[in-house]
Amino acid sequence: MRERPVEKIRVGQIGCGTVGSGVVRILTSNRALIASRTGCEIDIRKIAVRSFSDPRYVEVPQGLLTERVEEVLDDPEIDIVVEVMGGLEPARSFVERALEGGKHVVTANKALMSTHGGELLELAESKGLVLDFEASVGGGIPIIHPLKEGLAGNRISGILGIVNGTTNYILTRMGEEGLSFSEALRQAQELGYAEADPTADVEGQDAAAKLAILASIAFNVRVRLEDVYTEGISRVTPEDIGFARDLGYTIRLLAIAKREEDGISVRVHPTMIPLDHPLASVRDVFNAIFVSGDAVGDLMFYGRGAGSLPAASAVVGDVIHAARVILSGGRGIGCTCFDRLPIRGMEETVSRYYMLFEVPDRPGVLAAIAGVFAANEVSIKSVIQHGTGREARIVLVTHAVREGSIRSCVRELEALPVVSRVSSVIRVEESGEEG
Amino acid sequence: MRERPVEKIRVGQIGCGTVGSGVVRILTSNRALIASRTGCEIDIRKIAVRSFSDPRYVEVPQGLLTERVEEVLDDPEIDIVVEVMGGLEPARSFVERALEGGKHVVTANKALMSTHGGELLELAESKGLVLDFEASVGGGIPIIHPLKEGLAGNRISGILGIVNGTTNYILTRMGEEGLSFSEALRQAQELGYAEADPTADVEGQDAAAKLAILASIAFNVRVRLEDVYTEGISRVTPEDIGFARDLGYTIRLLAIAKREEDGISVRVHPTMIPLDHPLASVRDVFNAIFVSGDAVGDLMFYGRGAGSLPAASAVVGDVIHAARVILSGGRGIGCTCFDRLPIRGMEETVSRYYMLFEVPDRPGVLAAIAGVFAANEVSIKSVIQHGTGREARIVLVTHAVREGSIRSCVRELEALPVVSRVSSVIRVEESGEEG
Repeated sequence: MRERPVEKIRVGQIGCGTVGSGVVRILTSNRALIASRTGCEIDIRKIAVRSFSDPRYVEVPQGLLTERVEEVLDDPEIDIVVEVMGGLEPARSFVERALEGGKHVVTANKALMSTHGGELLELAESKGLVLDFEASVGGGIPIIHPLKEGLAGNRISGILGIVNGTTNYILTRMGEEGLSFSEALRQAQELGYAEADPTADVEGQDAAAKLAILASIAFNVRVRLEDVYTEGISRVTPEDIGFARDLGYTIRLLAIAKREEDGISVRVHPTMIPLDHPLASVRDVFNAIFVSGDAVGDLMFYGRGAGSLPAASAVVGDVIHAARVILSGGRGIGCTCFDRLPIRGMEETVSRYYMLFEVPDRPGVLAAIAGVFAANEVSIKSVIQHGTGREARIVLVTHAVREGSIRSCVRELEALPVVSRVSSVIRVEESGEEG
Repeated sequence: MRERPVEKIRVGQIGCGTVGSGVVRILTSNRALIASRTGCEIDIRKIAVRSFSDPRYVEVPQGLLTERVEEVLDDPEIDIVVEVMGGLEPARSFVERALEGGKHVVTANKALMSTHGGELLELAESKGLVLDFEASVGGGIPIIHPLKEGLAGNRISGILGIVNGTTNYILTRMGEEGLSFSEALRQAQELGYAEADPTADVEGQDAAAKLAILASIAFNVRVRLEDVYTEGISRVTPEDIGFARDLGYTIRLLAIAKREEDGISVRVHPTMIPLDHPLASVRDVFNAIFVSGDAVGDLMFYGRGAGSLPAASAVVGDVIHAARVILSGGRGIGCTCFDRLPIRGMEETVSRYYMLFEVPDRPGVLAAIAGVFAANEVSIKSVIQHGTGREARIVLVTHAVREGSIRSCVRELEALPVVSRVSSVIRVEESGEEG
């Protein structure tokens, strides 16, 4: 691949926003340490930015910045391209051009990898190049490399991830302070944990992109963003969180990937988890990924899922990996999606369900409701009536059942005269195996 | 390194006990999956055991077993040697001979790596060979590779580890059921979580070996087992755990490595940690390693730290790593202990302390005790008297102070007529930074 003796590894960076400035910071402040660990100095040679006049979060030496991305992509001295601009295009074209030009690539781009990851990894593999993307999921938490490498002896049965810090912060505040969703969101925005337009976070798309990446690696099946069923947290109420606590659960936005007999299921939605589950104690903006493998059992990886330096830590780790591959003359691992398994539709997914109904407090209500569940062959685990009069609520938890059956129940319940409203339907995850 | 085309990677195994039988199981049951992920079949060609008549925990095909280790070490067809016999000798010689013979080595041997890791890694590096040891710390939890690779951009400031399942089980039982140490130990023995001779676990030597390995990687400084200050849990009482809970703490056997201004500190001892610390919810035989880095912030890796299949999961992950290096033509990372930092003596270590005294309940006791702390310039954070009469106890917590000063206090307190006994001295770790 390379002829000249390796004295320095040269990095070209595309983008210098939140993550990019963190990369510059780390490669500058830990320069000597990184050189010793890698066995070679790692230099930033060029940083392509959209405009010189954009605000910078880090001091960049004069002459390093350029507005012409060609100065990164076409510079034969650049060994590794770091793509931290985000978004699909032109990021995809830039990454493709870098690989075509024989450069290793490190990217933090979850949209890109969850949409075009397959093709790009195949391209990298065909050229013997590294295409690393540790920062695309879980910020600073090492999860992509462990899944691809350290856990490669395991058949992975499931992943449960808290992979979006914004929604975890909001749900933590709602749970601990009784705030409403909109109050907690406003607090998150004031603290810079949520963007002015928080849609991608609160509606679960951000988590869905990360889940597509994790599931692809865990199951060796190409899972794309559009394959992931996604439901956000905006309809979760403090009342749901309170009832959850009474039942021994907390509510988190989980990214769930499960290997089932006849396919895989990939979904992001608010989920009740037992208070003694390791994920239940993940608070505020922290992320955690819970992995179950046939040999290793249950594992959890916990840390900061966002922020300039944590994400940049993962990018720099990947840069060091690429540098070591260059120095040792090896190759990247490439695409590992060799398997084909159907992705089950949400109707076929099996789960337990928590449901909350508003009902008039009068005889016969429970019998009518129970009749609907019985007719749909849904087995009820517990049912509790709270309050009386017009304020009466029924909290019901089912045993494991197909989502399709629950949807039928909801339609029929909404048509019942004794049910004023089906206020909430939230899936419930147990600690151990469930049917 | 290798001339013939790679169609199969061949493994020779030394030892077939708990971990070894797990390796056989995984390489057999997940054979096709591992071949697809690696791009090459991985075969066990030979397993050297001490005696054919030893009990086997797994069915091994006839002809695979040998009592002659030479059949593993001298077979030119064997690419990777898996050392799962444990202990220092002859394991050390066997690993050395395997490396000398050009074979990659995977070991689960914490005693070996914490004692001879440096020389062996240098030997492997000089030959361009992989010497991997993920299973030596934290069982199935990926921690060695993430520390060496994914987190390589970070200056690591500290590691707090629960790396011994036996002691964590005992402390969990003592805390949740009020059992005494010896009752909880007996329970652990009945469940197979503690050996008949539990010394290495309960006195902290097992954790110390693991800490030496973690600290060497985190700080790039050669730390050996004998450098680690070690104190076990046999003197922890249910009373201590109760007082700890009143103060908002739980007690765990922590393996602690800290980078300080003028050196590093490495120690294993019972430690009070705040109930809201992520490590506090690690129960029973689970392990967890909490890592703090300057870029990534706080991370935690959680999972099963022992057991046949979890440890074998790590071994197989390393075998796959070595196989990929063989296939891609790369090299292992080798020894990363390029730095020299003094290891601080325990007297110089700084911590907070919990102390429990038996005292007669009479005027002047507290004044006399406080005087001793004042004379040693130890600042007291809180002091509470429990009980009265001959049963009186004083529970005292200090601010951060040198261990040497605490030892002086203890000597002087024991000489005071008003102190019947200094029953306990337990170090206290806070969640955030401490002075």
